[in-house]
Amino acid sequence: MHIPSLIEKKRDGHELSSDEIESLISDFTSGEIPEYQMSAWAMAVFFRGMTPAETQHLTEAMMNSGRVLKYPKNSPPKIDKHSTGGVGDKVSLVLAPLLACDGAWVPRISGRGLGLTGGTLDKLESIPGFNVNLDDKRALKQLERIGVFVIGQTEDICTADKKLYSLRDVTGTVPSQALIVASIMSRKLAENLDRLVLDVKFGSGAFMKTKKDAEQLAATMTSVGKSMGVKTSHLLSPMDEPLGRAVGNALEVAECVEILQGGGPPDLVKLIADLAEKVSTTPRKELKQRLKDGSAWKKFVSLVYAQDGDATALEKITDLHRAPIVKSLPAKSAGVVKKMDAELIGRASVLLGAGRQKTGDQIDFAVGISGIKKIGEHVDLDEPLLLVHARTQQSLDSVLPILKKASEIG
Amino acid sequence: MHIPSLIEKKRDGHELSSDEIESLISDFTSGEIPEYQMSAWAMAVFFRGMTPAETQHLTEAMMNSGRVLKYPKNSPPKIDKHSTGGVGDKVSLVLAPLLACDGAWVPRISGRGLGLTGGTLDKLESIPGFNVNLDDKRALKQLERIGVFVIGQTEDICTADKKLYSLRDVTGTVPSQALIVASIMSRKLAENLDRLVLDVKFGSGAFMKTKKDAEQLAATMTSVGKSMGVKTSHLLSPMDEPLGRAVGNALEVAECVEILQGGGPPDLVKLIADLAEKVSTTPRKELKQRLKDGSAWKKFVSLVYAQDGDATALEKITDLHRAPIVKSLPAKSAGVVKKMDAELIGRASVLLGAGRQKTGDQIDFAVGISGIKKIGEHVDLDEPLLLVHARTQQSLDSVLPILKKASEIG
Repeated sequence: MHIPSLIEKKRDGHELSSDEIESLISDFTSGEIPEYQMSAWAMAVFFRGMTPAETQHLTEAMMNSGRVLKYPKNSPPKIDKHSTGGVGDKVSLVLAPLLACDGAWVPRISGRGLGLTGGTLDKLESIPGFNVNLDDKRALKQLERIGVFVIGQTEDICTADKKLYSLRDVTGTVPSQALIVASIMSRKLAENLDRLVLDVKFGSGAFMKTKKDAEQLAATMTSVGKSMGVKTSHLLSPMDEPLGRAVGNALEVAECVEILQGGGPPDLVKLIADLAEKVSTTPRKELKQRLKDGSAWKKFVSLVYAQDGDATALEKITDLHRAPIVKSLPAKSAGVVKKMDAELIGRASVLLGAGRQKTGDQIDFAVGISGIKKIGEHVDLDEPLLLVHARTQQSLDSVLPILKKASEIG
Repeated sequence: MHIPSLIEKKRDGHELSSDEIESLISDFTSGEIPEYQMSAWAMAVFFRGMTPAETQHLTEAMMNSGRVLKYPKNSPPKIDKHSTGGVGDKVSLVLAPLLACDGAWVPRISGRGLGLTGGTLDKLESIPGFNVNLDDKRALKQLERIGVFVIGQTEDICTADKKLYSLRDVTGTVPSQALIVASIMSRKLAENLDRLVLDVKFGSGAFMKTKKDAEQLAATMTSVGKSMGVKTSHLLSPMDEPLGRAVGNALEVAECVEILQGGGPPDLVKLIADLAEKVSTTPRKELKQRLKDGSAWKKFVSLVYAQDGDATALEKITDLHRAPIVKSLPAKSAGVVKKMDAELIGRASVLLGAGRQKTGDQIDFAVGISGIKKIGEHVDLDEPLLLVHARTQQSLDSVLPILKKASEIG
């Protein structure tokens, strides 16, 4: 295959064949195609986009560039969800054990937080001892025993995606819908699922700012999933205010414990039920019952133990990770909360140290924001709109102006 | 400078500053910016183009990435021309000595042929002994003595251009007007000229297929030249049929000898006079007189001797390089030549071995096409439309169908 011609073909707006895409990805993975050709191709894709067929072929090629999970014959259905990421999105921590109560298998490969988006692995690692690096054999055994694992992506899964993503990150080619879809879907489909639900977010704290863009992304991802034989559905969910009332790793785990014990913020509980209903065969009522009756909580505790975590720490996680400074942001007037901007709150939480500005940054499990009032709630004068958990006075001072800007009372 | 942001800026259609472009080029030259970032940037330039200011800054940065020729104080004006290249374009071989008759200096750095476009250096090297690699000191001495040199580009001139061109060649980013202009003009302006004339060709055998595209390219190049303090003018010239009657290295040198001795095909003589007039202060009549009275010829002979060439070979160059097979293409009917397609004739000459399909290919000085009838000329039945000079029967057979297609009699 003559790579410059292939780049020119995409550059000039023509469709690449399945064979061409497969060669491109496998030769890039093996190192035969140099990065300077791949980055020029990615920029051409940024400008020209990809047809649905091209996107599917790219997803498939990326999935096949690494190991795809294998299961014993006649094992239960494998199900999972993927979210495009938002501020305070801790859904996976509850949804994974909830779905596993069903008898279904939830073989979840999760990611780490970057920018506004928190990462499931980071949150789980705030639980002392929790181990996200299980080998294949151990992960499968755990699945057979308790029906769920949550692990990190290993080098041998979606090898091309890892290589291509690092390259895109430094060549201005991240925001290409086709490349985003192929990256997300190849990683999810490497889990070898039967059913998948996608949570595509839109709004200030989401990657997609408008519902229209989110719809288009959801449609493309869903069609790629289906064309690869996975029963795929999706939800569009708003991300203008944070999900739930907490942002930050230990703070979010504490909120999950609340939900798994039958409580928690209604918006979060509703989204979890909505997603569970889409991907599970169990009726919504029963799913909600499992949050109430302690069965999801028990499953979560088994998950924590199975992955070397100290489950006795769960109910005191915010004592274990306690920020030295906790300060409230009081309401300047009585009234109804009109705005609680997800993007600004997300940015503040990254500045506090709860998230990463760039890959490899260290996470501070204790810091973040809790007690966040929801849009539509009434507040009195001087009532706390939220609580800031900061490591230093300096970091507190740096985020207070942002948080003031984030909230509005009408 | 954060390179990904700079790539994104261009990707999103914003103008890069002079400082940004300068850093980009100097850090690319030094190896600090990896090729995968530069190729993504070049692809973004392909799609977004460049403003006149950006193009000028890029040209300047590329020129300054290497050595710029230096001359003693109060030396004569330095003048040269550049052609965008065409089939049978041997103008430089005549124009350089002609302009040097004036007392002006012609410090010509030439290129090699690639694709349809022949190269001045290749043609000169068909003269036994001709040396295109003069060091700086010797080149300047020659300029002081006879007012002209024709040499190849050295590694230390426009270093960035060489590096960027090799990268563009394999990443689908050659056909970007801004990058083309910067590449051409940086190399020409490294000659440190006072005056420059550009011969921008359009038509089947040219890089620009339409006059409109050629006009735009000419305008951009002219404005870049002027903005960098060089008196720059241009000509648009058609390239639908070959220039003159010969295509091929020794065959073209023989045609130049004819012109320098006062003869030669009128179209070629006219173009040489047109270009000379634009860049010289000598009146057209006197310039043409110098072709007639032997002074341009004498200057050419001195040039050949000065660069170790055997000038006694000039008048028997096609005897020295004689192809084993010479075959005419007879006219199928009497009439007027309506078409003599430059692109097809150029392609045939490359196939014969007179040009390169890719950089580094070996050139066969003897082969090519001569005696080409010009559009508008009358031919009798069976009169030769052209003569093919081939190394083997096989190569003759491969080009005859192309040459038949190239010509049309009406």
